[in-house]
Amino acid sequence: MEGLAKIEDLGKPRVVIVGGGFGGLELAKALRHAPVQVVLIDKQNYHTFQPLLYQVATAGLEVDAVVSPFRKILDEQENLFFRLAEVQRIDAERQVVETSIGLVRYDYLVLATGATTNYFGDAEMERNAIAMKSVMDAIELRNTVLSNFEKALQLGDEVQLNSLLDFVIVGGGPTGVEIAGALSELRKHIFPKDYRELDFRQMDIHLIQSGDLLLKGMSAEASRKSLEYLERFGVQVHLNKRVKSYDGYTVTLNTGETLVTRTLIWAAGVAGAPVDGLPPECLRKGGRYAVDEFNRVKGHPHIFAIGDIAAMESTEYPEGHPMLAQPAMQQGRLLAHNLERLLAGQAPQPFRYDDKGSLATIGRNHAVADIKLLGKDLKTQGFLAWIIWMFVHLMSLISFRNRLFVFLNWTWSYFTFDKGRRYIIGPTREPVPVEATTEKAIV
Amino acid sequence: MEGLAKIEDLGKPRVVIVGGGFGGLELAKALRHAPVQVVLIDKQNYHTFQPLLYQVATAGLEVDAVVSPFRKILDEQENLFFRLAEVQRIDAERQVVETSIGLVRYDYLVLATGATTNYFGDAEMERNAIAMKSVMDAIELRNTVLSNFEKALQLGDEVQLNSLLDFVIVGGGPTGVEIAGALSELRKHIFPKDYRELDFRQMDIHLIQSGDLLLKGMSAEASRKSLEYLERFGVQVHLNKRVKSYDGYTVTLNTGETLVTRTLIWAAGVAGAPVDGLPPECLRKGGRYAVDEFNRVKGHPHIFAIGDIAAMESTEYPEGHPMLAQPAMQQGRLLAHNLERLLAGQAPQPFRYDDKGSLATIGRNHAVADIKLLGKDLKTQGFLAWIIWMFVHLMSLISFRNRLFVFLNWTWSYFTFDKGRRYIIGPTREPVPVEATTEKAIV
Repeated sequence: MEGLAKIEDLGKPRVVIVGGGFGGLELAKALRHAPVQVVLIDKQNYHTFQPLLYQVATAGLEVDAVVSPFRKILDEQENLFFRLAEVQRIDAERQVVETSIGLVRYDYLVLATGATTNYFGDAEMERNAIAMKSVMDAIELRNTVLSNFEKALQLGDEVQLNSLLDFVIVGGGPTGVEIAGALSELRKHIFPKDYRELDFRQMDIHLIQSGDLLLKGMSAEASRKSLEYLERFGVQVHLNKRVKSYDGYTVTLNTGETLVTRTLIWAAGVAGAPVDGLPPECLRKGGRYAVDEFNRVKGHPHIFAIGDIAAMESTEYPEGHPMLAQPAMQQGRLLAHNLERLLAGQAPQPFRYDDKGSLATIGRNHAVADIKLLGKDLKTQGFLAWIIWMFVHLMSLISFRNRLFVFLNWTWSYFTFDKGRRYIIGPTREPVPVEATTEKAIV
Repeated sequence: MEGLAKIEDLGKPRVVIVGGGFGGLELAKALRHAPVQVVLIDKQNYHTFQPLLYQVATAGLEVDAVVSPFRKILDEQENLFFRLAEVQRIDAERQVVETSIGLVRYDYLVLATGATTNYFGDAEMERNAIAMKSVMDAIELRNTVLSNFEKALQLGDEVQLNSLLDFVIVGGGPTGVEIAGALSELRKHIFPKDYRELDFRQMDIHLIQSGDLLLKGMSAEASRKSLEYLERFGVQVHLNKRVKSYDGYTVTLNTGETLVTRTLIWAAGVAGAPVDGLPPECLRKGGRYAVDEFNRVKGHPHIFAIGDIAAMESTEYPEGHPMLAQPAMQQGRLLAHNLERLLAGQAPQPFRYDDKGSLATIGRNHAVADIKLLGKDLKTQGFLAWIIWMFVHLMSLISFRNRLFVFLNWTWSYFTFDKGRRYIIGPTREPVPVEATTEKAIV
């Protein structure tokens, strides 16, 4: 679509931000008092708090708790204009981005498009697996788990039944570990009550990790303990194994082993989600833009990239920073500062990542934490780590309202052992057709 | 599908309930200690609290607040078996219902399938209007309202713009009145902040009622006051007018007037949702089963119908009881009692409707109430009615958890003037294509 999108021109330098994830949103907010016009473009009208998506997927939280509409977050920011649109191409020559609502002119362009699920080119896997990157992914997983059990009630054949009751999670990073843990909690506290007619000793949860460690980026203690907790909760952890193929029914591992499941959750990799239009030499491995220490895309002084989509190569991080919320937010904040400096004719300041540590929860009372506290490294696992995990996540939520409601939800679930969002609304992954075992005669 | 659905046989008389709305759910719960096996069949896995759907549609409540999974509500009821299935046909001869999961045998069958939107045969209206009967309807309306405004930002043409900003609601019953009121609140408190670039003086809300009264079933005071409140809130109420046609863009009234809107909400009628298989003489006007005073479908001693789908004709209610939650729940409770009596060889007791009154809310601090209090008729409008409305709806919600969270939500919204669920997730009604006004040159 040619033609200019209808956005008032404030007569100030215009900063166009593509993507309202952790990095883009932080940047937009930090530009609040800057002498610029900010145009934030996203294909959704809400910010997603991805670290808690797995709780939506496992019926612990409602969608509401993990999304915040951009217009609500930013409605008092007068220099900001939000547009719901898809960005199709960057035209660096003309300084415009081509979008689904027309051309948008920029003085400075910031790419904050984040990451997308990486199937490493396996189209069959992409078709059959469920990912865990978006709200729709989370809803789909929740609906699919619940539908599986409803269908399982009609099955007599043992193998067919197991294919519906068993789950295979690929990827031993935080998402994989957290989903495996949450499913094991549902198996223990919820499903046997909901589905008295099914025998949940038949429900297997497999977690497959290509390397020999879970939570690879974390400390050795965290890796070891997360494995111990998962095994205690009855999750079957397969280390040093890879999935070779999955046809929607049979999972084949590189060892020749096979598992049967209708639900494979793919948490094994993400890749940058670059936009068309910049020359290929701007891109690094994994679809990330090569940026300098000011987050400038190499060769394009007016184009920046922050967060997952940016690979700022340094001696400490030769392949760029980890694809997490913290680097994205810190880059967003610094870039706001640097844009103000640039406009004032001052030199920008280089980015230094302040790694505050990592956390992952395995289940009720069980988490692992590697954090910095008062300048010291603290490595802890178990109940204290779980309390820290909850506190950090609550404090990171966007609004006070979300914090309050998530806190109340968690408190409620903790004392009642309940996870109440067990309804099937919206998309469900239809499995490869199952032949229901029905008896011939009417008894 | 032939073949028997796999449901354990308890060796007790089996009561099959089709539909878990207010009537079916109440019956299922009341049969908790009865010497029967209860099979509850619904095409959703959750009960919907329909009276608050309009708040989901207008971003006031999350879906979570108005639905409850059946398995959660009923998980301690040992004689109950829930099945997620569609019922296709009744075979009264063989005493089975044909469903999407196979045949289900019954000793007693209770039809509690409720009502569906009635377009009175107008296929064009059905295609173009949004209804307000299901959770998906409510989500669709919310998404459509928000998408309209996002699209409106790109329009220059005045008429096109108004077609996106204006809303037409057909039907002056509680649903129509409540949606009109809620939209006027959004127009006053929320939208102007979210969409600073739009002029909300251009947003018109039309409510069309075929008769000369709003809230027809209620008292004259309630009708008069609801009209007064709506007009005070800037809703354009059209009494004694009918919609002749709607092509997705132009609404033509019987007076020859036309209105232009891309969003017409149809709240003008419901009809029973009968199941195939019973002879046509069982059905009355509006698709309801003719039942005797014990809710037995005429000519079928083992088949009952309760709630919206049942027309129990009496001198007081010549066309059956009003299609509301109260008669359905009372019939459900009495039928549980009567089934126990029948099994004990006792005569059943006839149904007498205890009309506890009606309530409707127009907006913040404004509702109308016709209720019975300590045996006396109380008619009140305004703040007191609004407090009563909230109290009654809170107490009617299924679980303590839902009551607590809805209460907190309402309290939060009351003091902050906020309605936070303004995200577009799930289906959106795509309007008849709008030609975006885009300028030719890049300025």
